[in-house]
Amino acid sequence: MSVTAAKGFTAAGIAAGIKENGNPDLALVVNTGPRLAAAGVFTSNRVKAAPVLWSEQVLKGGRVSAVVLNSGGANACTGPKGFQDTHATAEKVAEVLDGHSAGEIAVASTGLIGVLLPMDKLLAGVETAAAQLSEHGGEKAAIAIKTTDTVHKTSVVTKDGWTVGGMAKGAGMLAPGLATMLVVLTTDADVESDVLDRALRAATRTTFDRVDSDGCMSTNDTVLLLASGAAEVTPEYAEFAEAVRQVCDDLGQQLIRDAEGASKDIKIEVVNAATEDDAVEVGRSIARNNLLKCAIHGEDPNWGRVLSAIGTTSAAFEPDRLNVAINGVWVCKNGGVGEDRDNVDMRYREVHIVADLAAGSETATIWTNDLTADYVHENSAYSS
Amino acid sequence: MSVTAAKGFTAAGIAAGIKENGNPDLALVVNTGPRLAAAGVFTSNRVKAAPVLWSEQVLKGGRVSAVVLNSGGANACTGPKGFQDTHATAEKVAEVLDGHSAGEIAVASTGLIGVLLPMDKLLAGVETAAAQLSEHGGEKAAIAIKTTDTVHKTSVVTKDGWTVGGMAKGAGMLAPGLATMLVVLTTDADVESDVLDRALRAATRTTFDRVDSDGCMSTNDTVLLLASGAAEVTPEYAEFAEAVRQVCDDLGQQLIRDAEGASKDIKIEVVNAATEDDAVEVGRSIARNNLLKCAIHGEDPNWGRVLSAIGTTSAAFEPDRLNVAINGVWVCKNGGVGEDRDNVDMRYREVHIVADLAAGSETATIWTNDLTADYVHENSAYSS
Repeated sequence: MSVTAAKGFTAAGIAAGIKENGNPDLALVVNTGPRLAAAGVFTSNRVKAAPVLWSEQVLKGGRVSAVVLNSGGANACTGPKGFQDTHATAEKVAEVLDGHSAGEIAVASTGLIGVLLPMDKLLAGVETAAAQLSEHGGEKAAIAIKTTDTVHKTSVVTKDGWTVGGMAKGAGMLAPGLATMLVVLTTDADVESDVLDRALRAATRTTFDRVDSDGCMSTNDTVLLLASGAAEVTPEYAEFAEAVRQVCDDLGQQLIRDAEGASKDIKIEVVNAATEDDAVEVGRSIARNNLLKCAIHGEDPNWGRVLSAIGTTSAAFEPDRLNVAINGVWVCKNGGVGEDRDNVDMRYREVHIVADLAAGSETATIWTNDLTADYVHENSAYSS
Repeated sequence: MSVTAAKGFTAAGIAAGIKENGNPDLALVVNTGPRLAAAGVFTSNRVKAAPVLWSEQVLKGGRVSAVVLNSGGANACTGPKGFQDTHATAEKVAEVLDGHSAGEIAVASTGLIGVLLPMDKLLAGVETAAAQLSEHGGEKAAIAIKTTDTVHKTSVVTKDGWTVGGMAKGAGMLAPGLATMLVVLTTDADVESDVLDRALRAATRTTFDRVDSDGCMSTNDTVLLLASGAAEVTPEYAEFAEAVRQVCDDLGQQLIRDAEGASKDIKIEVVNAATEDDAVEVGRSIARNNLLKCAIHGEDPNWGRVLSAIGTTSAAFEPDRLNVAINGVWVCKNGGVGEDRDNVDMRYREVHIVADLAAGSETATIWTNDLTADYVHENSAYSS
């Protein structure tokens, strides 16, 4: 499954020794064609890791023959040496995969910022991975890109004669402008790179871009979509775009469910906004309110914290027309006390907040998590 | 000391029974003149508590004869009834203080959002407090406005023949556009309300407005400055403004040191910014990065999280010219690895981060705290 569910792709995942604990840490995904079309979306963080700077250049050509990914080090804030290391990695992949060019090899890294990668281990790992490439290697590749993820994440949508599949990693530093994550999607549909780009941007805008687990934006976020054309089918754009969206949505949900330390998945649905931008701004403000996230952790339907988060935005609304429902109970009506908060059942993992701005007809849904002592623990001991 | 350090003021703090635990919860501060000048600054949250809406109107007249403050309930998101309750409170104060007018009584409330105040207890408490008004009542008033504060906060600056003093409360929901807090400052200097307003806005802009403990902006923030003129001295503006700034700065520091669950006070100094706005934007982005706040809690000088926070801003900078020092060690130079991070000593409560944008000559300092399991615990059980 994963990135090898679609025809025309091989993959491998191995332990190169980049991670000190010996876990798998290097993945290779190869497009065996006949087509080598690709599109990519990257972090909007202005501090970009070396592999992001490299892969952005590669994707400008619209062709990717292989993707090499490592966990165990982000290769971010590593200066010119870091960029040279990324370049050397792409060169190594091109060398071991006969007939490939480094300029068509995308590179992605994840892990601690500010540390150079152990290049001897990484380059040797590329050789090992290349020797293990297989049409069944998607699962191992998905496992090799994990960092603090507790499970690996894959998704597949199969249509009439063609498939979109993919893998994702990400658990912390999950926020907009792409969550902290690496995602590789593959399809055997016969689709050109500009169509891939359009479908990928449309899909990420309403899926990964609306996952905001902890408000922290990564230096390494990368989402790639590769097409092999091996199915010899060119689907209608709408059908293709919807399949890509479904895979992105499914992977985004898996990221939220595995977020560091989280005990609740919180779906924030902003309705009756004047504009979609307003809805997203309000949803994000609620998603990033630490006090609300703590309250949800304590199964406390503290709607005052929702209103105080809405109040910090520039969205169109009148304070005395706001309504808030938590798990179906309208605890706030017209900006004041609504139905009895004791009726709110918060025992389950998913919590559904509806914020009604009463200002229009647009809507957006943002996903976040609660804030827990486990999150603090995990992130106060991460680099040491 | 506190609000009665300056001549021309009396105060009281009592337990009215608003808090279920029986702790003091009602404070009264009275300006006995001869002057009744006042200025106020309020939360920029668009969802404003009833007492904020009321006091904003009162302050437009530039005269305040008394301030009544309660803890145990924010009277926010309480609709028309909440506003009527605030009005009734001011009327009650005017009634028990002979010769006062409700339109010159400021009201401030703090506590849980979305709950109506127990008005019978509150109004009876106003009578009790009025009977206990004293020139030595400042300390008791400061104690009565505490919510989750572990200590009460007061500050006094005495100059040649005149004084500025004050009290503050605030421990959570501490963020810009004024931290979640109530502050009453008093002076016996003979200063008109427009001068008070100018001095207060100048002082809060670089003190309370740069405290950002948890990124959450309150519905109730209120900072008042009252002048009695009882010292019969009109100081030079610059000297007066500096005294007000000193008291605000001292109280702001006390808020940070008592922030909920915090184990570290973090001073974020942004230097060599192109503009002061850039410096503040970058400082706030760093202050609100949950991952960095967790790392500091773990005494981990994880400068990559500083860079990734800077990268989300619109400030002028080049990623490969950024420098970051933590407790005096330049762990990041030119956007990459700098001095050995093992040299950073993080054993003490205060942590000093310098972010050098290398883009100009402006600077700003933002104060925040670490993110701890205690913060999560305190805020997941607050309303229940």
